[in-house]
Amino acid sequence: MSGEKRNAFYAQSGGVTAVINASACGVLETARQHPDRIGAVYAGRNGIIGALTEDLIDTSQESPAAVAALRHTPSGAFGSCRYKLKGLAENRAEYERLIEVFRAHDIGYFFYNGGGDSQDTSNKIAEFSARSGYPMTCIGIPKTVDNDLPLTDNCPGFGSVAKYVAVSIREAGFDVASMAKTSTKVFVMEVMGRHAGWIAAAGGLSQTSPEQAPHLILFPELTFNEDDFLRRVDECVQNFGYCAIVVSEGLRDSDGRFVAESGSRDAFGHAQLGGVAPVIAELIKRKFGYKYHWAVADYLQRAARHIASKTDVEQAYALGAAAVDFALAGDNAVMPIIVRTSDEPYTWEIGKAALADVANVEKKMPPEYISADGYGITEACRRYLTPLIAGEDYPPYVDGLPDYVTLANIAVPKRLSSSFELS
Amino acid sequence: MSGEKRNAFYAQSGGVTAVINASACGVLETARQHPDRIGAVYAGRNGIIGALTEDLIDTSQESPAAVAALRHTPSGAFGSCRYKLKGLAENRAEYERLIEVFRAHDIGYFFYNGGGDSQDTSNKIAEFSARSGYPMTCIGIPKTVDNDLPLTDNCPGFGSVAKYVAVSIREAGFDVASMAKTSTKVFVMEVMGRHAGWIAAAGGLSQTSPEQAPHLILFPELTFNEDDFLRRVDECVQNFGYCAIVVSEGLRDSDGRFVAESGSRDAFGHAQLGGVAPVIAELIKRKFGYKYHWAVADYLQRAARHIASKTDVEQAYALGAAAVDFALAGDNAVMPIIVRTSDEPYTWEIGKAALADVANVEKKMPPEYISADGYGITEACRRYLTPLIAGEDYPPYVDGLPDYVTLANIAVPKRLSSSFELS
Repeated sequence: MSGEKRNAFYAQSGGVTAVINASACGVLETARQHPDRIGAVYAGRNGIIGALTEDLIDTSQESPAAVAALRHTPSGAFGSCRYKLKGLAENRAEYERLIEVFRAHDIGYFFYNGGGDSQDTSNKIAEFSARSGYPMTCIGIPKTVDNDLPLTDNCPGFGSVAKYVAVSIREAGFDVASMAKTSTKVFVMEVMGRHAGWIAAAGGLSQTSPEQAPHLILFPELTFNEDDFLRRVDECVQNFGYCAIVVSEGLRDSDGRFVAESGSRDAFGHAQLGGVAPVIAELIKRKFGYKYHWAVADYLQRAARHIASKTDVEQAYALGAAAVDFALAGDNAVMPIIVRTSDEPYTWEIGKAALADVANVEKKMPPEYISADGYGITEACRRYLTPLIAGEDYPPYVDGLPDYVTLANIAVPKRLSSSFELS
Repeated sequence: MSGEKRNAFYAQSGGVTAVINASACGVLETARQHPDRIGAVYAGRNGIIGALTEDLIDTSQESPAAVAALRHTPSGAFGSCRYKLKGLAENRAEYERLIEVFRAHDIGYFFYNGGGDSQDTSNKIAEFSARSGYPMTCIGIPKTVDNDLPLTDNCPGFGSVAKYVAVSIREAGFDVASMAKTSTKVFVMEVMGRHAGWIAAAGGLSQTSPEQAPHLILFPELTFNEDDFLRRVDECVQNFGYCAIVVSEGLRDSDGRFVAESGSRDAFGHAQLGGVAPVIAELIKRKFGYKYHWAVADYLQRAARHIASKTDVEQAYALGAAAVDFALAGDNAVMPIIVRTSDEPYTWEIGKAALADVANVEKKMPPEYISADGYGITEACRRYLTPLIAGEDYPPYVDGLPDYVTLANIAVPKRLSSSFELS
């Protein structure tokens, strides 16, 4: 197809991040530099659903300033979705419909910005389009706060969550240290990461000596040992006057149940409404009587563009740009990745992975990143994580608030008379 | 006492903030400019408790750089406490002890950085010292995230919490808007302010048109009307695809009970562990089935120096500096305040209030700041709040994290043989 001018499709998938729009910015700005090769970039409204329902957004109608502002705007500007395409055997109609829509809009490039499931989807679409006589260039763009994609040094979105968590526990630790003499002695902060402790581990960056927060981290990789944990909490309070804890939402007890679900039940027998932070805080209170506070940052952590990592923003943008470059160079069924070339000083370059090697492989946190006692991070972990939160990349402010962009998101006129029922 | 060289005492009281150390910085830097009048500034370790137990910190041993760094460091650098001196009739011994300690260390200036209770204490100490033949200059310095002190335009600490809350709900709102098509449709963010809705109101600054977050604010000033609220939530989801809510921790039901306590109870009959956010989220889920997320920022909001309001930092510093200026000018039993001289452009100057007029008077949020329907803020409220979150004042960063200072906090050698039992 080299040399032909075709339209492109771009979609955001799964949980959004502080920097997925920076990747979108990289895609759009780079595509606009090649008007001879790429016509319009059509975005899927609400992700792949927009393709299936022929609900496409004409990004060519957005001004250069609006596109540039995506770089500093959190969330998914075109809407994302949690919708996983089934396998070909299970729902061939979905793949056929995608090709029908792409053909109708002369789309020759498919850019899919998401996590492991999405890369699997991209790969299947690449295979299906080749076999169905509508060859299309399919490029994945990595994204996930969970940092669980293989091959790439890290995943865009993770570095900014990591920075938010490390900054927040440092600040809360200072606060509690001030109050501990007569008031709050225990602070528990719950963070995301149901299956892996990457985000919890990032909290550990805040601690540069033992008296600093966080004193204890509870990882989803390790079974919660209540007695041992409580002993450690009391040690902290005795030694430092207070104890600041980071706990992963994915913490499990020895029966494999989420600790978040082991708390109270309401009158209807529903599992308690809170997260794991209040459960942990209350355990400590009952044992030692210490006054506690707890926080659940939830979406605030992944949307916190105001404190995004500069490294993360730059990498997210570069990966979006590289996806277009790869497509124009004739690559197919690949994903640009971050290759770390040095820890100190941190240097990185863009590499390339085959979607087939990325799809459905989960990167776990190495056991050697967790300290021997199970409550902290090792130097190896610190060496890996530190560069990912490096640098600040502040958005512009108006009237004291970040000036995030909301795009016009003008629909592309439909060309198909058929509608499509989502499964 | 004018002309004499005396030592000074400074203490932090009550819940700490992102900028109380900026006030400390103002006190210390200004005092250091007057070595002919002010000897050492001794800080109370853990607030007034440090004075009662003769546990004083010699701030003159801190380097100018360390003192300057207080301006960008959240929390209370010398420790704070929740300890309210009783009235003179109830515990005269406490007042006598304070004078004993102050006399032993030649302290002629008393600076007390806190909320309404603390200003009441400052006033009593001023009266008692005058009557007891140990005249001392007592100056209050305002501080409280609750923004509930009278006479002053606002309270240092509030503007930065307000900015954090407005930024956070804007960011979370963008996130949820991206996800709403197939996933989360409701987001609930709980904020501080048990007795007044100032902080909840600040969330309203994020909304500049009806489709933006927060769509609904639940104020502690208004009784929670579940049916009406649920109707409004559904309207939002129908109109905008999602609903973002800010709720004050102090929200009460028609029986006057905290809604936070109306949720589930555990096996022991303890009130549920969570806050009000999960209760509200679960109510919506049961009624409409909408998937929700919720966040409780807790201490993160008041410690968030990384996103402090520049206006707030400047005012906190100016009030600390003015306290010293007032003392040197011969004032006594007063507190510097912020006087607003114009809304647009926002201009302000330092004024002066008698402690007697400040003590035990609580500034409520004016009813006309809440919109007629009870779920938003009015233009008058916006006009009042907007300048308070204006400007950014970023701390320096090292290795991706804010470089907050921990002082040496070297103890002043004790001069009294007697100890003191805290009540």
